[in-house]
Amino acid sequence: MQTLIEPAWMITMESPVRLQTGMALCIEGDRIAAIDTPERLQTLYPQARRVALPGKILMPGLVNAHSHAAMNLFRGIGDDLPLMRWLQERIWPLEGAMVSDEFVFDGTVLACAEMLLGGVTTFNDMYFFPGAAVRAARQMGMRIVAGITTIEFPTAYASDADDYLNKGLTARDEWKGEASVHWSLAPHAPYTISDDTFGKVLTLADQLDLPVHLHLAETAHEVEDAVSRTGMRPVERLERLGLLNERLLAVHGVHLNPTELALMGQRGCKLAHCPASNLKLASGMAPVVAALEAGMTIGIGTDGAASNNRLDMFAETRLASLLAKGVSQAADTFTAAQALQAATLGGARAAGLEDRIGSLTPGKQADMICVDVAQDVFAQPAPDLLSHLVYVGDRRDVTDVWVGGKRVVENRQLHDAAAILGSEVLLKRLPIWQTRFQSALGG
Amino acid sequence: MQTLIEPAWMITMESPVRLQTGMALCIEGDRIAAIDTPERLQTLYPQARRVALPGKILMPGLVNAHSHAAMNLFRGIGDDLPLMRWLQERIWPLEGAMVSDEFVFDGTVLACAEMLLGGVTTFNDMYFFPGAAVRAARQMGMRIVAGITTIEFPTAYASDADDYLNKGLTARDEWKGEASVHWSLAPHAPYTISDDTFGKVLTLADQLDLPVHLHLAETAHEVEDAVSRTGMRPVERLERLGLLNERLLAVHGVHLNPTELALMGQRGCKLAHCPASNLKLASGMAPVVAALEAGMTIGIGTDGAASNNRLDMFAETRLASLLAKGVSQAADTFTAAQALQAATLGGARAAGLEDRIGSLTPGKQADMICVDVAQDVFAQPAPDLLSHLVYVGDRRDVTDVWVGGKRVVENRQLHDAAAILGSEVLLKRLPIWQTRFQSALGG
Repeated sequence: MQTLIEPAWMITMESPVRLQTGMALCIEGDRIAAIDTPERLQTLYPQARRVALPGKILMPGLVNAHSHAAMNLFRGIGDDLPLMRWLQERIWPLEGAMVSDEFVFDGTVLACAEMLLGGVTTFNDMYFFPGAAVRAARQMGMRIVAGITTIEFPTAYASDADDYLNKGLTARDEWKGEASVHWSLAPHAPYTISDDTFGKVLTLADQLDLPVHLHLAETAHEVEDAVSRTGMRPVERLERLGLLNERLLAVHGVHLNPTELALMGQRGCKLAHCPASNLKLASGMAPVVAALEAGMTIGIGTDGAASNNRLDMFAETRLASLLAKGVSQAADTFTAAQALQAATLGGARAAGLEDRIGSLTPGKQADMICVDVAQDVFAQPAPDLLSHLVYVGDRRDVTDVWVGGKRVVENRQLHDAAAILGSEVLLKRLPIWQTRFQSALGG
Repeated sequence: MQTLIEPAWMITMESPVRLQTGMALCIEGDRIAAIDTPERLQTLYPQARRVALPGKILMPGLVNAHSHAAMNLFRGIGDDLPLMRWLQERIWPLEGAMVSDEFVFDGTVLACAEMLLGGVTTFNDMYFFPGAAVRAARQMGMRIVAGITTIEFPTAYASDADDYLNKGLTARDEWKGEASVHWSLAPHAPYTISDDTFGKVLTLADQLDLPVHLHLAETAHEVEDAVSRTGMRPVERLERLGLLNERLLAVHGVHLNPTELALMGQRGCKLAHCPASNLKLASGMAPVVAALEAGMTIGIGTDGAASNNRLDMFAETRLASLLAKGVSQAADTFTAAQALQAATLGGARAAGLEDRIGSLTPGKQADMICVDVAQDVFAQPAPDLLSHLVYVGDRRDVTDVWVGGKRVVENRQLHDAAAILGSEVLLKRLPIWQTRFQSALGG
């Protein structure tokens, strides 16, 4: 079964990033078989079903480099609170009372629906009950990188670090062979993970060839506290433990200093940049341009809906691009091309999947989106469609989405099974969760 | 003729900002006649036509505190360029070759369409040919504060500062008596206006009781250059010239220092905050929280479409709120309530119109918008509709807009005359302008 997609424009996201016209793409099974002129592909694949997409841009699906998808259920639950009150009065009590397999499944269903309709094809997730998140992603038709999440304290999910690791590994075994399910080791953060557990994570990462996904240097307090407790900044500790290598995806990195950026760049570490969450929680602004100059790969992430409050990679990419210019004081930095590449190929690299997704490249998975460049007053004129995608583009301009060759969004609608499941969670189960939140918060 | 609007929720924007249920509003002519329970208003106004808006929030129209509306024609014309190349290679050559009465009319038509559909009812504009901008705003049904724009160098519009002032004053006379047309004196910026011209502006402002709208401390270079040329920072010069008073609306203010903020706060000066433009041109981040603490009124502006590239007050307000938290390093600053008030009443105060617009208050003009809180996965859950408007709200959620009691947007559609004019400019005249731009840029 082959499908020949013929858009008006294509951006493969391979360097140099550019907008191409007169190009088509052939899907075969779950992969991209070929990219060439429509005429040549029609000759090569005479049996292919043809899908014409006039007026639309075809590009790789967006990769959300850091999410806590299940937290969609917590959207708006603690706005305008300082970080510690946000954690102590809202997030921790709710998570303590609420988190379960069913909670993670329902929250992830809503997050997948939001992300797919907004052009995100892969999310790099970290949360409790990762098996439930994988189940939700599979039913919604979305690619997931599930974190084998680990933390030292007990929750409804697991009792201690070993228990977290074992449960995550078991879930991974259960989903073996699923082409759209991937895994990372996800030790929560240096301040919640012991040296001993980091040692186990390192061994497992090497044995299983998995990326290591952790929060790092999110707040100034975190860094200061580490220094006063251990005499070391968190990066120095990770270096001593042997974790600074190509597997490492550091999330946030707001308070990485130039020496740390240089070291992490040399070691091939990646950064998941979550600008909206960092601003909303007043953590600060990550040194993205400096990180790029140090050789780090940048992905862009939304973080969870409790600190953003949109899983909107268009808004996030625009914000990342604008903020980088303000922070670096140079208007020609983190250009539209760089921002788009970060939101796709950068995220793929961050999740250790650059050989499978992130660009339109023959042999890679057919994870792609179609963006309609609206002819209306919100969007016109549009003299440069590449920068237009970043500075004017809107998630509501996404019309079609493919994951692993399957068209999961068509004409702005989720495929039937996802639409039914999404509606059921939204209309029937969300009201129940909300009632339970109120009693958990004593309201 | 009376109309009784019955929304599910209402936010008047009067302090303390809060969401009210069970309240209705009666429009009489161009004004808000009364706000009370639906039952009482039905008794008081038995003849009124009733408009039920279930599931929707009624709030004041957004006020764009700083725009160059005609520049919508320049959207995307110079992305990712450093400021001086942006000005020297794109904006100035294009403006030199292009700007005319017809250009300003067409560009402002597009901007009004974009803004009205996105819930903006008033724009505080500064550009050449302000009479053409007023003509466009009137035909589109939008409230304008037109700048009597002044600059020392000649353009196709005027030959010198006196000529600019005279032409602006003539345009003002022509539109006298129009309730939705307002004026400001708009000397471009300290670095483009002589002491002599500032003196004339000051006299006119007092005589005509008009606000003074100018760019101030946008870039570090501007401040440094003023010091090296005049021995004074721009604010010190304005102080000596007597311009620091309640009439003054300073745009940008990125590089105002604490002493300047304190002085301007004491004097009742206002700040138009344009966060996206300041980031995109790498000017920096305005000290909004410090300005508020110094007693300044804050409005929010989009600036022109060549440096943003959206005239989207929902995106701008969200960005202002997020950025203020990041800059001030406190997550509970510039709360959703403060941001919403800045985007409405703050903008009204900035433009000297707080007695006429900016809040839902009996006696004020009926400038209002209806926002649909979507029940879909992009927006749910929404436990706090007030903060939801800022952090999740989207301009595409605006369903209805009234300006001076006239319903200019109904069910997401412009009223007929505006729709026809907007389409004509978009489909017939924009392509002609684009061809001319290319030849002006030598491309």
